[in-house]
Amino acid sequence: MKKAKVIGTVWATQKQETLKNSKLLLLQTLSFNDNAPKGTPFVAVDTVQAGIGDCVFYVTSKEATFPLKSRFAAVDASVVGIIDQTTVHGKTEHYL
Amino acid sequence: MKKAKVIGTVWATQKQETLKNSKLLLLQTLSFNDNAPKGTPFVAVDTVQAGIGDCVFYVTSKEATFPLKSRFAAVDASVVGIIDQTTVHGKTEHYL
Amino acid sequence: MKKAKVIGTVWATQKQETLKNSKLLLLQTLSFNDNAPKGTPFVAVDTVQAGIGDCVFYVTSKEATFPLKSRFAAVDASVVGIIDQTTVHGKTEHYL
Amino acid sequence: MKKAKVIGTVWATQKQETLKNSKLLLLQTLSFNDNAPKGTPFVAVDTVQAGIGDCVFYVTSKEATFPLKSRFAAVDASVVGIIDQTTVHGKTEHYL
Amino acid sequence: MKKAKVIGTVWATQKQETLKNSKLLLLQTLSFNDNAPKGTPFVAVDTVQAGIGDCVFYVTSKEATFPLKSRFAAVDASVVGIIDQTTVHGKTEHYL
Repeated sequence: MKKAKVIGTVWATQKQETLKNSKLLLLQTLSFNDNAPKGTPFVAVDTVQAGIGDCVFYVTSKEATFPLKSRFAAVDASVVGIIDQTTVHGKTEHYL
Repeated sequence: MKKAKVIGTVWATQKQETLKNSKLLLLQTLSFNDNAPKGTPFVAVDTVQAGIGDCVFYVTSKEATFPLKSRFAAVDASVVGIIDQTTVHGKTEHYL
Repeated sequence: MKKAKVIGTVWATQKQETLKNSKLLLLQTLSFNDNAPKGTPFVAVDTVQAGIGDCVFYVTSKEATFPLKSRFAAVDASVVGIIDQTTVHGKTEHYL
Repeated sequence: MKKAKVIGTVWATQKQETLKNSKLLLLQTLSFNDNAPKGTPFVAVDTVQAGIGDCVFYVTSKEATFPLKSRFAAVDASVVGIIDQTTVHGKTEHYL
Repeated sequence: MKKAKVIGTVWATQKQETLKNSKLLLLQTLSFNDNAPKGTPFVAVDTVQAGIGDCVFYVTSKEATFPLKSRFAAVDASVVGIIDQTTVHGKTEHYL
């Protein structure tokens, strides 16, 4: 799982049926070393009531479908936790 | 899921059986930051009646098979929504 | 799915049981923009009777196993169609 | 599977249900050639009681869910072994 | 599937249960163009009695679990064949 900041939202009226009622968030991956942005933003489905500005961790690929009601949703990235605190090389950082 | 523009189509008479009756679109991934093209175009199956020029989001890998009638189609990318609007870092963009 | 040219073949006597009777092709991925080679060649299983020199599209990962008789073949890339024609940015190209 | 060093831990109160009771470790991938760090740290679930400083190997993607009690946990990386010893090009290295 | 040379072995006493009795090989991917090494070495499970120095091809991701007795082994790379011969752009190479 990687760390990301929620930076936006996406709206789509015409979408695949299993995505109805899903909240689509736009995420920017951040490095655990220095919080630098990695790669470009992408769309993920929310499963933990995350909001704009939250620091979260997400799963990609097949795993992303499991937290949804339907096991077969057309999803390849899901937010699965909101980060409270990390300890990296003995240094603790608080996020809330 | 990533954002892409539909830039073309692909025809194949001789193809794996589960792909019969599927519309094959050619997609170019675009960055959510500045709409710059990312990587090279690829083939995806349409599930939402997208057309040339539409801005869409797509899933890759195993998830791509679920929106199709057969859960076992030989597909690794599917268009699953047509984007209406995005809000990134508080800035809203309309696509339709 | 990506586009590739069939550039060779691979023989292996000692191989995992589910691969017996499979034709192993060597593919070179080509860009849809300018047909430039992308990455290095790799081994894929044939499911559409493709031959040396054919322009094909292939699936990777789990999807690659579905066109085979056994759903559990030890395969991560399969040729699933021979390309007849593409239209990219309004320009049509014929392959046969 | 790749080699990594356990460099930290992650805490999240608000997380997807299948992750409750899982220990979340922060891993840094290391090269088997020279132990140089590869890429940036990421979060993995522990299945072998690994601790800070241990040299481990991990699986990514769908496989990562299997060692957990629930086969459908929202996980895409798991620690599956603690490395005792490697032999690379005839040179043996001990880790414990 | 990609081509690799078996360059070493890995030992781990403390490992995830489904990995007991599996031989863990260290592989270096080689290019089919010029046999140049690609990327860094990684751990794969042996399913064809490959040994140090053998030229093999391997599968990655979910497919890697199928050749094993348990379909749910915590594995993401498996050796599935030992290469006898390749023909690339009409040039034949023998490996045994």
